[in-house]
Amino acid sequence: MMNVQLLVSSLLEHAEKFFPKKEVISPMPSGIVRHTYAEIGKRTRQLSSALEKIGIQREDRVGTLAWNHNRHLEVYFAAPGMGAVLHTINIRLSPEHIVYIINHAEDKVLFIDEDILPLVELIKDHLKSVEAFVIMTDKEELPETTLEPVYSYEKLLQTGDEAYQFVKDIDENAPAGMCYTSATTGNPKGVVYSHRGIVLHSYALGLADTVGVSENDRVMPIVPMFHANAWGLPFAATWFGSTQVMPGPRFTPKILAQLIEEEKVTKTGGVPTICLALLKEWEEGNYDTSSLNAILCGGSAAPRGMIQTFEQKYNISFLHAYGMTETSPLATFSRLKSYQMDLSQEDKLDERAKQGILVPGLEFKVIDGQGEVEWDGKSMGELLIKGPWIADEYYKDERTKEAFQDGWLHTGDVVTIDEEGVIKILDRTKDLIKSGGEWISSVDLENALMAHEAVFEASVVAVPHAEWQERPVACVVLKDSYKDNVTKEDLLSFITPMFAKWWLPDDVVFMEEIPKTSVGKFLKRALREKLKDHFAAESL
Amino acid sequence: MMNVQLLVSSLLEHAEKFFPKKEVISPMPSGIVRHTYAEIGKRTRQLSSALEKIGIQREDRVGTLAWNHNRHLEVYFAAPGMGAVLHTINIRLSPEHIVYIINHAEDKVLFIDEDILPLVELIKDHLKSVEAFVIMTDKEELPETTLEPVYSYEKLLQTGDEAYQFVKDIDENAPAGMCYTSATTGNPKGVVYSHRGIVLHSYALGLADTVGVSENDRVMPIVPMFHANAWGLPFAATWFGSTQVMPGPRFTPKILAQLIEEEKVTKTGGVPTICLALLKEWEEGNYDTSSLNAILCGGSAAPRGMIQTFEQKYNISFLHAYGMTETSPLATFSRLKSYQMDLSQEDKLDERAKQGILVPGLEFKVIDGQGEVEWDGKSMGELLIKGPWIADEYYKDERTKEAFQDGWLHTGDVVTIDEEGVIKILDRTKDLIKSGGEWISSVDLENALMAHEAVFEASVVAVPHAEWQERPVACVVLKDSYKDNVTKEDLLSFITPMFAKWWLPDDVVFMEEIPKTSVGKFLKRALREKLKDHFAAESL
Repeated sequence: MMNVQLLVSSLLEHAEKFFPKKEVISPMPSGIVRHTYAEIGKRTRQLSSALEKIGIQREDRVGTLAWNHNRHLEVYFAAPGMGAVLHTINIRLSPEHIVYIINHAEDKVLFIDEDILPLVELIKDHLKSVEAFVIMTDKEELPETTLEPVYSYEKLLQTGDEAYQFVKDIDENAPAGMCYTSATTGNPKGVVYSHRGIVLHSYALGLADTVGVSENDRVMPIVPMFHANAWGLPFAATWFGSTQVMPGPRFTPKILAQLIEEEKVTKTGGVPTICLALLKEWEEGNYDTSSLNAILCGGSAAPRGMIQTFEQKYNISFLHAYGMTETSPLATFSRLKSYQMDLSQEDKLDERAKQGILVPGLEFKVIDGQGEVEWDGKSMGELLIKGPWIADEYYKDERTKEAFQDGWLHTGDVVTIDEEGVIKILDRTKDLIKSGGEWISSVDLENALMAHEAVFEASVVAVPHAEWQERPVACVVLKDSYKDNVTKEDLLSFITPMFAKWWLPDDVVFMEEIPKTSVGKFLKRALREKLKDHFAAESL
Repeated sequence: MMNVQLLVSSLLEHAEKFFPKKEVISPMPSGIVRHTYAEIGKRTRQLSSALEKIGIQREDRVGTLAWNHNRHLEVYFAAPGMGAVLHTINIRLSPEHIVYIINHAEDKVLFIDEDILPLVELIKDHLKSVEAFVIMTDKEELPETTLEPVYSYEKLLQTGDEAYQFVKDIDENAPAGMCYTSATTGNPKGVVYSHRGIVLHSYALGLADTVGVSENDRVMPIVPMFHANAWGLPFAATWFGSTQVMPGPRFTPKILAQLIEEEKVTKTGGVPTICLALLKEWEEGNYDTSSLNAILCGGSAAPRGMIQTFEQKYNISFLHAYGMTETSPLATFSRLKSYQMDLSQEDKLDERAKQGILVPGLEFKVIDGQGEVEWDGKSMGELLIKGPWIADEYYKDERTKEAFQDGWLHTGDVVTIDEEGVIKILDRTKDLIKSGGEWISSVDLENALMAHEAVFEASVVAVPHAEWQERPVACVVLKDSYKDNVTKEDLLSFITPMFAKWWLPDDVVFMEEIPKTSVGKFLKRALREKLKDHFAAESL
């Protein structure tokens, strides 16, 4: 067979040739803008060419601090298209971590959304490698800034050649992208994506039995483009010619609901917290949701009640998936097998609440201290993953040796696996609750609590306990209309039939909000810290 | 990203783990047999192990002379699973060519269906490299044979270890398969498939926008497993957990129609001649075709009338594709773009009669003497293809330099390409008719003739002509019920409105049958030979 390398630029070239009329839609401060793939292609080529002209070289890191919109998509292809590395930076991290990331990746140029400029002004004196700043503004003139040298995105584009030819003498294993993921303690850890990994992952997203990204689709990635390449959706959607509906800067649930209605979005994807917020918006407003046929959800386990609402009330397929920054991210995908179609509605929901089977192209195993666990749906173990779109290290980081051992990524996620090969995430290793020598899954308790009609969000954490070592405590946010009407006893008696007695939380603490990480996951570390003396105080 | 090689064995391993209950169904002389993927997995491992025991080594060629059934599928995975090369041999070729192929590939072992044994007995004294014969018989005892040494498939299996571990230290570019394709003149030419090519091609078959091979499917590959890996369907169907319904040895249109009805086939695939034969069987019999939702058709251009019957009469999606042995084979695939959905029925049929756009992962271009042709749907040129599942040579063959130039496969097919990037096959380069210095497409004329209700098959060929150099002559097989009722004038006046006058065939010759190649394509060479003095005779 021919020695043809799998390169990111080929995805855009395919769209330019076969889907030149299809659009990328971005709601920007100046209004909704629409670009065809023919235009995106020319602009991307201009940008690659302009990057070369300002001195960016192969394998140089090109940083982005930006929301989801067409310009960010252009950088997605322009940087790897000229042999450089797209480095998406999570704008929700602390300024200290952002400084660390930029210096550690040695970014040569930063692409900055206008509203993120103040942050960059704040940290600019600490940046060691950056040689140029590009402001992604809609306006003709640059905003006032002390950054130097600084370019306006559109003016920079005009210096480039729209007939630029993407470089092809690149090894498919060369770096094409980079993303840092926050660590429990210490600085974020860098993951490097290769051209090969991105292309293979894009195939995986196009399979009929996974997300099935199609030319028919109008895809809206809610998941930010600064987080694990927006789950790879921009790459796959471009390749397969889907219309892309970008949420734009500083989107709200209201904006998302409007975009779904007005732009007739067919597929979207986000973490459970944003899916919940979208449902809340739909409940409170009056939106047409009929175009949406599927919502891809991952990042943390989705509560069963939410899945039920999407599927049964709104008739939207809930595509429950699992992955992490280190896995590009799609690793497992939940779908019913053909012979499960006659399961009861309840049993189907139970299946959909699991994280599914392995995506074709990867390998996994679930291990405990004794080796691989039984596929019985009960035995717990840590999930290990291997495959061509799985990271093999953290970039220049000593923590590599903790997570990558013997050719496997140790995910840190505790799962069960059943006889169908379907995994169910129980917890992060560090979030499991160890009570009297037995494990309790916080995720199971959370899902049970969130099935109660009064509960908006619930997070269960381990709290140190004199007698039992650790005991579960539930942190609960009630829906507005239920505040003052529901007691902790109501909630505990609701979930009592579902668990062994010793699994039940010792207490329920009501909160206004559950603290979250920069990508919308429950920040359990903060909850544990807050509650660490909960039982100590009681015993006083 | 991890350095994980794309290997054929991983496809079967995925099915063993995640689809162990799904079945492969084979109608054998002893009756229909059903094996689960769990069983297929064990049997394949036994076979890999047994092959090692009889001395087969890495990269040795393992030849098969067999129909579509589970044992052939087991060899599909057992040979590459132990590092050897699956070499499928076209049993419809002449004995001389089969001898050439086996000796040229240096097959070490031959797997032979019982009904093909007489052929092998006939040629055995000419085979130079074969060290063992395996008869794929259902019976306990071996049939009488002079082959030596000879094994019974099932007994050989029993000598193997069902816990055999497939070898993993293989480079993904190593050979996994081989298939010879017949040449216009001379011996067949060998194409070598790599592990990487087969895995990537399988991804392409699973995409929502191509064949979308799915776990939901019950796939029946009519296209023989000795021809271009049955278009890769056995690999993809196994990987994605589809039920596989094999047509078994010496199938007939009646058997196919029965299998579709009884085994509730959802997707099938074959060349236009077999699709026509299937339609004829349906018309004459009384079959339930309701399970079938798609028929994949390629190998030569499908007539518009046939597409219409499948789509409009039977409500079966007609998946028109293009490829050749050298392209694994899937290269282009016809589907309507989302914005073409409001075309008229007629326009949609016109689109479906084209061969479609490029499958994601490949590159093509269409060239004439001046360079790339316009994408105007009119300019004709030869189709060139490049990609990771496209051959880069003919195995140890000097004809490599004719077809593979500057990194491109020169397909020898003349096409037009329209503004949507959709190609339409007009002819093989050598089948184009050159009349008075202008090109005439035989395929266009054939499709027009086949749209007449009386016509079962039509083939148009160039016949030497004193004045015009070449002129088209149509060879037509009428449907039984129309014989003696339809004249050549009827047919010519039917197509007259569709073409320029000088395109119309100078004559129509009625035949009982059109000679075909071993894979069901019109054998135009034979027709040209037969008709070469047609105009010479007339002018006498």
